[in-house]
Amino acid sequence: MEARIILVEPKNEENIGAVARVTKNFGFSDLCLVRPPDIGKKAFSVASHAYDLLSACTIVDSVEAAIAGSALVAGTTAKLGFSVNRHMRMPFFSPHELREKAEGKSGTLSLLFGREDMGLLNEEIMQCDIVVYIPTSPVYPVMNLSHAVAVVLYELRDVESESGERELACVEDKEQLFAHLRTFLDEIEYREHKREKTMLMLRRILGRAELTPREVRTLRGILSKAEWKIEREEDST
Amino acid sequence: MEARIILVEPKNEENIGAVARVTKNFGFSDLCLVRPPDIGKKAFSVASHAYDLLSACTIVDSVEAAIAGSALVAGTTAKLGFSVNRHMRMPFFSPHELREKAEGKSGTLSLLFGREDMGLLNEEIMQCDIVVYIPTSPVYPVMNLSHAVAVVLYELRDVESESGERELACVEDKEQLFAHLRTFLDEIEYREHKREKTMLMLRRILGRAELTPREVRTLRGILSKAEWKIEREEDST
Repeated sequence: MEARIILVEPKNEENIGAVARVTKNFGFSDLCLVRPPDIGKKAFSVASHAYDLLSACTIVDSVEAAIAGSALVAGTTAKLGFSVNRHMRMPFFSPHELREKAEGKSGTLSLLFGREDMGLLNEEIMQCDIVVYIPTSPVYPVMNLSHAVAVVLYELRDVESESGERELACVEDKEQLFAHLRTFLDEIEYREHKREKTMLMLRRILGRAELTPREVRTLRGILSKAEWKIEREEDST
Repeated sequence: MEARIILVEPKNEENIGAVARVTKNFGFSDLCLVRPPDIGKKAFSVASHAYDLLSACTIVDSVEAAIAGSALVAGTTAKLGFSVNRHMRMPFFSPHELREKAEGKSGTLSLLFGREDMGLLNEEIMQCDIVVYIPTSPVYPVMNLSHAVAVVLYELRDVESESGERELACVEDKEQLFAHLRTFLDEIEYREHKREKTMLMLRRILGRAELTPREVRTLRGILSKAEWKIEREEDST
């Protein structure tokens, strides 16, 4: 897989420079910044010999734009069991498990790293297929941004040199499937106060499942068929 | 094992703060600085919630003092096959292999990290039992100091929670053994121009071998016995 390192609203330009450096240290090159601050001399000084990579980074305005076309989207968090998921089965993957998940696959692996002070927002975490947690000490779990990137890229270091066989569905296809599922929950009059949580659970399950484009088409086919059946029954009553 | 993180002549106080932070992130606490610069506000700002660990760090004047009492001394390097060892068999260990080497052992594991610009000097590398190399890209292998610490401590993260069974000989015992070996090479009139390289090779072999205190005593006993034999033969001629 091709890794894309995405920093969401980083505040400190030295951290951006440090991330550029460690990205090059581990042989990666695709750095994307979502709404970064101005990148000036300080960032380039810290980037050191990775100034070329920093100059070539992509700057976008939204997480959606950053993850466009991705086959797998992994968000990182220092917080385990935060509120939106507390009651929901949401396994966290270690960086090593992420490495194993990426093996034998093809396409873009987007790695989302959040803000220095508050990480990724819940709505950003929801856009991820899987969530990665670096096993830190409960006494002081919050790592510096560039250290978190260093550890994840260390585990992924040779992932780009492998030729993946298995093509995964891209984020856009999966979003269409999730939109379809949401419509379907409406259509079957699923309990409204449970819809959001159920949708999140479906995202988690299908995110982990590493769907292929064909599987996405099949699932959508099932939904369409069910919709057709419901409609026909409604018409006949 | 108990890990001791040793920075040799770090130049940049922000790096020291960053190392303190990641040391605490991975649940370690023993930070030792050899001839550091003044540690001021900048270092504490970067250390963030690890200010306690930074305040409690040990400051020493030499590598010898830093590694005193260690059971295993590991040096880190970004350079493979540097001059002093080019022609000598000197396997490098990955951070993961270091983790495996530490398993089931007891005592202090000293981790030496060198200067930002020139790493560890050859004479410092010679004092190490093993040398650790982080598998970085040949295009830009030199990592930021705190990133290198982050990756090594990530691999070692739970090494302190295991109870080791096997006691290793401490660095002082091994240094006495090495001094004994050097004297022995003199006594047997080993070729003078080869002595230094042979001593380095013996250090590498015995460093990797994870000697117990009993084994060190036995090896020294063999040397003493050989010396006794040589002396007796000399007296009788």
